[in-house]
Amino acid sequence: MSSVWQSRLSLSIFGQSHGPAIGMTLDGIPAGEPIDTERLQAFLNRRAPGRFPWATPRKELDIPEFLSGIVNGKTCGAPITAVIRNENTRPADYAKSADVPRPGHADFTAHVKHGGFQDASGGGHFSGRLTAALCIAGGVCLQVLARRGVTVGAHIVSVADVSGKTLDPVNVDELLLTRLTAMDFPVLTSDAAPRMIEAIAAAKAARDSVGGVIECAAVGLPPGLGDPLFGGMENRLAALLFAVPAIKGVEFGAGFEAARMRGSEHNDPFYYDGETVKTRSNHHGGILGGITSGMPLLLRVAVKPTPSVGKEQESISLSGKASEALTITGRHDPCVVPRAVPCIEAAAAVAILDAMI
Amino acid sequence: MSSVWQSRLSLSIFGQSHGPAIGMTLDGIPAGEPIDTERLQAFLNRRAPGRFPWATPRKELDIPEFLSGIVNGKTCGAPITAVIRNENTRPADYAKSADVPRPGHADFTAHVKHGGFQDASGGGHFSGRLTAALCIAGGVCLQVLARRGVTVGAHIVSVADVSGKTLDPVNVDELLLTRLTAMDFPVLTSDAAPRMIEAIAAAKAARDSVGGVIECAAVGLPPGLGDPLFGGMENRLAALLFAVPAIKGVEFGAGFEAARMRGSEHNDPFYYDGETVKTRSNHHGGILGGITSGMPLLLRVAVKPTPSVGKEQESISLSGKASEALTITGRHDPCVVPRAVPCIEAAAAVAILDAMI
Amino acid sequence: MSSVWQSRLSLSIFGQSHGPAIGMTLDGIPAGEPIDTERLQAFLNRRAPGRFPWATPRKELDIPEFLSGIVNGKTCGAPITAVIRNENTRPADYAKSADVPRPGHADFTAHVKHGGFQDASGGGHFSGRLTAALCIAGGVCLQVLARRGVTVGAHIVSVADVSGKTLDPVNVDELLLTRLTAMDFPVLTSDAAPRMIEAIAAAKAARDSVGGVIECAAVGLPPGLGDPLFGGMENRLAALLFAVPAIKGVEFGAGFEAARMRGSEHNDPFYYDGETVKTRSNHHGGILGGITSGMPLLLRVAVKPTPSVGKEQESISLSGKASEALTITGRHDPCVVPRAVPCIEAAAAVAILDAMI
Amino acid sequence: MSSVWQSRLSLSIFGQSHGPAIGMTLDGIPAGEPIDTERLQAFLNRRAPGRFPWATPRKELDIPEFLSGIVNGKTCGAPITAVIRNENTRPADYAKSADVPRPGHADFTAHVKHGGFQDASGGGHFSGRLTAALCIAGGVCLQVLARRGVTVGAHIVSVADVSGKTLDPVNVDELLLTRLTAMDFPVLTSDAAPRMIEAIAAAKAARDSVGGVIECAAVGLPPGLGDPLFGGMENRLAALLFAVPAIKGVEFGAGFEAARMRGSEHNDPFYYDGETVKTRSNHHGGILGGITSGMPLLLRVAVKPTPSVGKEQESISLSGKASEALTITGRHDPCVVPRAVPCIEAAAAVAILDAMI
Repeated sequence: MSSVWQSRLSLSIFGQSHGPAIGMTLDGIPAGEPIDTERLQAFLNRRAPGRFPWATPRKELDIPEFLSGIVNGKTCGAPITAVIRNENTRPADYAKSADVPRPGHADFTAHVKHGGFQDASGGGHFSGRLTAALCIAGGVCLQVLARRGVTVGAHIVSVADVSGKTLDPVNVDELLLTRLTAMDFPVLTSDAAPRMIEAIAAAKAARDSVGGVIECAAVGLPPGLGDPLFGGMENRLAALLFAVPAIKGVEFGAGFEAARMRGSEHNDPFYYDGETVKTRSNHHGGILGGITSGMPLLLRVAVKPTPSVGKEQESISLSGKASEALTITGRHDPCVVPRAVPCIEAAAAVAILDAMI
Repeated sequence: MSSVWQSRLSLSIFGQSHGPAIGMTLDGIPAGEPIDTERLQAFLNRRAPGRFPWATPRKELDIPEFLSGIVNGKTCGAPITAVIRNENTRPADYAKSADVPRPGHADFTAHVKHGGFQDASGGGHFSGRLTAALCIAGGVCLQVLARRGVTVGAHIVSVADVSGKTLDPVNVDELLLTRLTAMDFPVLTSDAAPRMIEAIAAAKAARDSVGGVIECAAVGLPPGLGDPLFGGMENRLAALLFAVPAIKGVEFGAGFEAARMRGSEHNDPFYYDGETVKTRSNHHGGILGGITSGMPLLLRVAVKPTPSVGKEQESISLSGKASEALTITGRHDPCVVPRAVPCIEAAAAVAILDAMI
Repeated sequence: MSSVWQSRLSLSIFGQSHGPAIGMTLDGIPAGEPIDTERLQAFLNRRAPGRFPWATPRKELDIPEFLSGIVNGKTCGAPITAVIRNENTRPADYAKSADVPRPGHADFTAHVKHGGFQDASGGGHFSGRLTAALCIAGGVCLQVLARRGVTVGAHIVSVADVSGKTLDPVNVDELLLTRLTAMDFPVLTSDAAPRMIEAIAAAKAARDSVGGVIECAAVGLPPGLGDPLFGGMENRLAALLFAVPAIKGVEFGAGFEAARMRGSEHNDPFYYDGETVKTRSNHHGGILGGITSGMPLLLRVAVKPTPSVGKEQESISLSGKASEALTITGRHDPCVVPRAVPCIEAAAAVAILDAMI
Repeated sequence: MSSVWQSRLSLSIFGQSHGPAIGMTLDGIPAGEPIDTERLQAFLNRRAPGRFPWATPRKELDIPEFLSGIVNGKTCGAPITAVIRNENTRPADYAKSADVPRPGHADFTAHVKHGGFQDASGGGHFSGRLTAALCIAGGVCLQVLARRGVTVGAHIVSVADVSGKTLDPVNVDELLLTRLTAMDFPVLTSDAAPRMIEAIAAAKAARDSVGGVIECAAVGLPPGLGDPLFGGMENRLAALLFAVPAIKGVEFGAGFEAARMRGSEHNDPFYYDGETVKTRSNHHGGILGGITSGMPLLLRVAVKPTPSVGKEQESISLSGKASEALTITGRHDPCVVPRAVPCIEAAAAVAILDAMI
């Protein structure tokens, strides 16, 4: 539990937003897997701050140093450990967080849990910055998965009240997913992006923030992965997806829409496509009884609006046991949805590879 | 993983729908806890089949026998094991399932995973019947939680396209939850129930089925439960909730609606109510940074329509590698939502007690 | 932890010595494995009480009923659950244990841990009787291992101060191990058995008890099983072996004798036997760096003398907070070593199969 | 499993002997615990190489850098991560290990497990150097334990065939343990040390090595720690102790000697010392039924002779599939026993603290 997740793979994430470094240890990756660090860096850059108007201007190059597990560009069977030094820290920005918890953040709950000893700067270990460590793990897993024929990709379905299209659950394929992962602002229809970016800009101008919905798919999965009950792919994926701080909901296949459908409509008819069993529709999102069916795996997550907003907010002083108004300074994303896209891919990749090895 | 979930508590669920028995082992419950078996039975009866027009007519009294862990009505520190004998089995109803997988069920994926050796009768270990075992564990945990001041309760938010009300996220209390758990068809407004039951009856008449949404709340939780990242309450709860077979989505607090809100609106302002820190709204659903805030914990799950429908469906013969029409006979629920309500309470109770001890 | 062990396989053991039943759930065994119940029963009979002068006269047939996981004589992929009803219980024999802890037993520590709510009859969940459940799991694993070419067998090295021979670490083979597992009192040299049995009889006559050393070997193991550090085969085996209550020490290969050797003597030279890498000696006991080498795996465990002795002993009354003499009545083994032999095979089999799947 | 151990605490160890760094992440330590880095360094120095004639001359200062989990000298609740850079690496010394496995080392088994992709330099992840990471974790736990009244200490019982004294199992106390941990070569009687050091020197002169036995005790433990069966203190301790590469056996209390005793002799009589329950002897080593009794916890481990010896040895060429003589160069300990002493304390400290929180 806590900051270590353990299954066949295990993933330990460490560090605080304004501490010396953040990083991760990923254990269980087979030996002999080439790790393309340029490709990994390209993946991490999709999450990195400071590159776009919708992202925090905090500058962090986010270049991991590998301390363990890689020899001559290949995994050696030892745990893979990588660290990213924190450089552009400004703890002074957060001097107040320890006493006046920011609404929507973990400041208050961390204070209670850790009896006031938590690292309050920038949310400490609870910061979204820790997802950079998740992305290192995910980026490694994505490369291993690719060699096993599995492609994972995600895109933005909606931002605030601007909705784009969702994936075709039956025909989504590797090509489309690869194209999406190459985009700075991945959406299915070109007209959606400018409207979403506009919604972000409007929120930023109002010293406010917006959330959205991300959809993620994995294709090339063999049928038979996962287990019943607690070992279902939904359980496994959820256990990793909710590690991304802003996620407040996850649904698979038809998800919440399934609750409005009739069984005869929701059930996906089986047929043979040559030797392969497929379903004509894919409301089940590639998972039946917790186990992959071989159809595309599909999930969507709800991303809440960034809790750090510039507007004055009502809070309290923990030391004074009294109300205290709070105006958050510091550098923040008016919308974390675009930067969360690779995080969702990362979480999914770890869960999927874990079920395959 | 698989059918064993292990944290501070551990829960192992076993059995097949038409095998000799189903049951569970729950380890880690402190010694000395009185277990009121009548109250437990009343809880199990809420999930039991055969009692209402919306439930399968399969008759199972579902009375657990405790084989371990209880001495003189109190827990003794040994693992708690209880079994329910399967009595009203009709394996003949499922003779075909092994070869012609039922759409929307785990028949096909279990076949692939287990190489044709799975118990195909009634879905075997993948059957919804296994949730009776989850409910034994949950029923025990609910009693222990009650003595620690925590009340868990759930109700039906919607069935098919009939929507009822959701809980007041700030003011939901023990009284309301207790009242809901005493209802056969728990809804918040009296007018919603007949319309939902009508929608179920209509589906049944059409040899079809419907799904719905269940909302669950826990009150009385102390702040500070849970952990960051993989140990968040959302992760822990999801890992258990998705063990209920029909669940295809879960959301916490404002959930997917949060994706449409602005940060200034979604953030819940802190204030002091006497010595207690509270929030004026509760979009965070009682969880911030994975850790309880002390506000009511709130979640909703999407329940898909029962995959067993009487209408003819398109499927395949695995032996013949060809299309084959399928008409499901046997006894089935036109809607599992009402019977899933205690299952959701059970899953939540296990996750919450685990975080408290 | 506790009574659930979880790795790739998971094993949950439940029940109390004088409760309704004991049993176990073993999850993770592949589907399609035939389970020969007669052979399993023959294995359990080796542990069963009441058959020999050196064993307790408590009569228990110890015939497990399988509630889950077996269909038509083969595993179906669901967790395997089996229970043994307790029949020949005499809780009255233990009326005093709750207040006057038996020296060498868990009565006192269980009392402290469970605040007096523990099941004190016959040691409750701490009883050696629970090893019957371990043997069900081990018996299943032994059959699966046999089909994969792995044979596990154990024998008695010493009883009290009577020492027999140890296995030839290099040449131990399947034939010898199979022959040992067919013996009621398995020793390597025929002269050792009568002397050991005599030592047991002498202790019994003196209302006392004796311990001994058991050696266990596994042959047919492929090289490469296990992991470094915490996942070493020694760690994995020890984690299961110490679940057998009387075990107070475990050593691998040369074990404690290695501490007296020089490196040049202890190191086992490598050589090629055809295509196979072997070592000329086997002081490493088939494990190097935690990982199997392909040479026979060898371990020995120390079994303490049965703590239940008929002689009067010094103890205390917990209620009276005062000294109180104790004379144990009831039925007990003057030496548990012979009955512990299959338990050690069982623990080893579970650990080894877990590392292979 | 593998290089991550997870219980209430979790410990992840990473790095290779001649890679960029080694280190560890320890998760679950409560927030607010002061970490005295000088005291921690003094503890690490006891394990560090290059300081004594009996240790390898490889110079490593072994000063950990904390990347996570410590703020202003206190734990903050985030995982504690520390790394030690490898400085005095000489990979050239090991050019041959990848092809010609060193007897007694993990070179061959790692080769099989990792398909030839393992880091062969100095044993890579299998190196004894990784115990420096274990000692960081243990050093932190020892400080936390000390504040809870628990003292852990170990000493050398024997080297080769030179035996010293063992601890008085009943009267060992904090003072004695503290005195032992302050010694460079901790033994109970002053005459034993020179004879042991002489045995080491003799082995070194012969380009050979020797092993020994270490005894470890913990005092101040409350009764009631640990669990039955797989959660016993013996199981938990063994799971960590065998992570120290050279350990080939572990025994608790009377251990293997118990196998020669009668029950009436081995059983430890209970009595009241004021309000406290104690035992007159301590053959049980402070653990009954897997649970602490409040008496001193006592264990001994067998340390095999260092496998790296200067004498020519028989080995094979994996590429040539043929015999090949091997003469190991590089820098090695003629006896790792003294440096293993703090490693045993570390492993014990992690297991004990884990059972207390």
